[in-house]
Amino acid sequence: MERPYVVGIDIGGTNTVFGIVDARGNIIDSGKVKTQTYLSPDKYVNDVCENLLPLIDKIGGLERIKGVGVGAPNGNYYTGTIEFAPNLPWKGVIPLAAMFEERLNVPTALTNDANAAAVGEMTYGAARGLKNFIMITLGTGVGSGIVINGQVVYGHDGFAGELGHVCVDRKTGRPCGCGRKGCLETYCSATGVARTARELLTSRTEPSVLRDIPADDITSKDVYEAAEQGDVIAKDIFEYTGRILGEALSDFIAFSSPEAIILFGGLAKSGDYILRPIQRAMEENVLNIYKGKTRLFVSELKDSDAAVLGASALAWELKD
Amino acid sequence: MERPYVVGIDIGGTNTVFGIVDARGNIIDSGKVKTQTYLSPDKYVNDVCENLLPLIDKIGGLERIKGVGVGAPNGNYYTGTIEFAPNLPWKGVIPLAAMFEERLNVPTALTNDANAAAVGEMTYGAARGLKNFIMITLGTGVGSGIVINGQVVYGHDGFAGELGHVCVDRKTGRPCGCGRKGCLETYCSATGVARTARELLTSRTEPSVLRDIPADDITSKDVYEAAEQGDVIAKDIFEYTGRILGEALSDFIAFSSPEAIILFGGLAKSGDYILRPIQRAMEENVLNIYKGKTRLFVSELKDSDAAVLGASALAWELKD
Repeated sequence: MERPYVVGIDIGGTNTVFGIVDARGNIIDSGKVKTQTYLSPDKYVNDVCENLLPLIDKIGGLERIKGVGVGAPNGNYYTGTIEFAPNLPWKGVIPLAAMFEERLNVPTALTNDANAAAVGEMTYGAARGLKNFIMITLGTGVGSGIVINGQVVYGHDGFAGELGHVCVDRKTGRPCGCGRKGCLETYCSATGVARTARELLTSRTEPSVLRDIPADDITSKDVYEAAEQGDVIAKDIFEYTGRILGEALSDFIAFSSPEAIILFGGLAKSGDYILRPIQRAMEENVLNIYKGKTRLFVSELKDSDAAVLGASALAWELKD
Repeated sequence: MERPYVVGIDIGGTNTVFGIVDARGNIIDSGKVKTQTYLSPDKYVNDVCENLLPLIDKIGGLERIKGVGVGAPNGNYYTGTIEFAPNLPWKGVIPLAAMFEERLNVPTALTNDANAAAVGEMTYGAARGLKNFIMITLGTGVGSGIVINGQVVYGHDGFAGELGHVCVDRKTGRPCGCGRKGCLETYCSATGVARTARELLTSRTEPSVLRDIPADDITSKDVYEAAEQGDVIAKDIFEYTGRILGEALSDFIAFSSPEAIILFGGLAKSGDYILRPIQRAMEENVLNIYKGKTRLFVSELKDSDAAVLGASALAWELKD
């Protein structure tokens, strides 16, 4: 292979992480810059490239790089732009793919982080060989990457796959950061779990080790550790969260009938405490013709690597 | 064109209608048999073919037919079978595509009626040139055909796109024929509209011309005619139904971000009485990034022709 490497750049609100990746998903080298400190996207792209180029030189220079993949919030695959990303310092529409392409002279693809995660899973992870699956990312928010016939679904405008904002309770749902209410994300994100913890700790009287943690700081990791100690309220937080997610998944199945749904992110690491209620609610609520057909499992990619791997995987799909 | 015609066969619970169709969507000739009277699928296929072959002879024989397309309830595109169709006289899994192919010696494709409607709309109707759209069929039930990147979404098992069975009210929803409750179909199908009419006529005291019709017999056409006379309850039936459908559509948009949603069937013929509340609820509930982007309109195909055209359109996609 003449160009055996790709570059993955994952743009987060706090940090930007980039790495050089080989075809088997090994991250050969990596680095990072602090996204938040760059008020100008030009300076940002420049600094990312200045940090990246020495790593590229070490593996033989730009002619060994097949392409660059960028994962970014509100990233649009069709245009290569990020558009009005609320957690990034740059306002409006920023043509990031073109900016990297111009600076590095290597073909560059860009999409949002959840779509990148799906491509990464398909290229290096648990979804190898799968043509129809849905990736659900459970982080600060809830994102999704939908793959149908082996292709990520981008929709007519590049913004398809916002399953975190499907409404699970239109009447009495929680307010969402998007301005609507009852979005799946308000229950199954990190903040959703913390809110559920607060609500259960208030409405119930049992003792719980979670009562020792300031309610706003409770993470799914705390809940997991409490559940491991046999904490009843902690287990019920996972039951509640898992049921809502499983019900939502049963509707997603009616859309694209995927062979698998893959979970990724903090909450997904809570093992059977969360997986069992998700699986149960999914199977109980799914239409008969789909019962028992859709596998549910957790991403195989390491959290710390997944974002860069996902972004990098986009680059293998670039046409020469 | 050496083979300028295709055959469309639409299998309904009561009748099977078949026709010979040209590339512009003209039905050159057609016929029908009564589905219900055939206890054996062999005899059924035989009789359909015996009625069809004289029509084919009139246009120059089987060598002028590019392919046969079949639309059938519970039809599976991948296997060419119908599987456990509750409204057909044959139980279990019936390999209908293979049976027609064997009898006529012409390549045959089969899918469910809503997917066929989507292909028909894309081939001959309002969706020509569209690559990403969702067809919603509002009939006895609610069906859907989803097109992404110009391809019908069949899912991993051939059964994707059952949006009539997405849950719109998990807590207090109406019981559905599928055994679950709160399915979209229980509100937006013909029986759903009749039920809404019954509920509103019972809970409210205003006069209504609908009170003169036996409650179980009320159709969306009756409601339309009442609305045309200024009937307040009739208009509210459409408001209620349209709001529920519009809310559901706003979630479908978060999945595949289609450029259009196309409505087909009895309810869709009620004009602005139903379209305005659908459109309003859809736009009010859709995530900001999608607002104003997805067009909503009614199928251009004639009701009486649409099923045969849809089935026939499948045949153009067959490989030679």
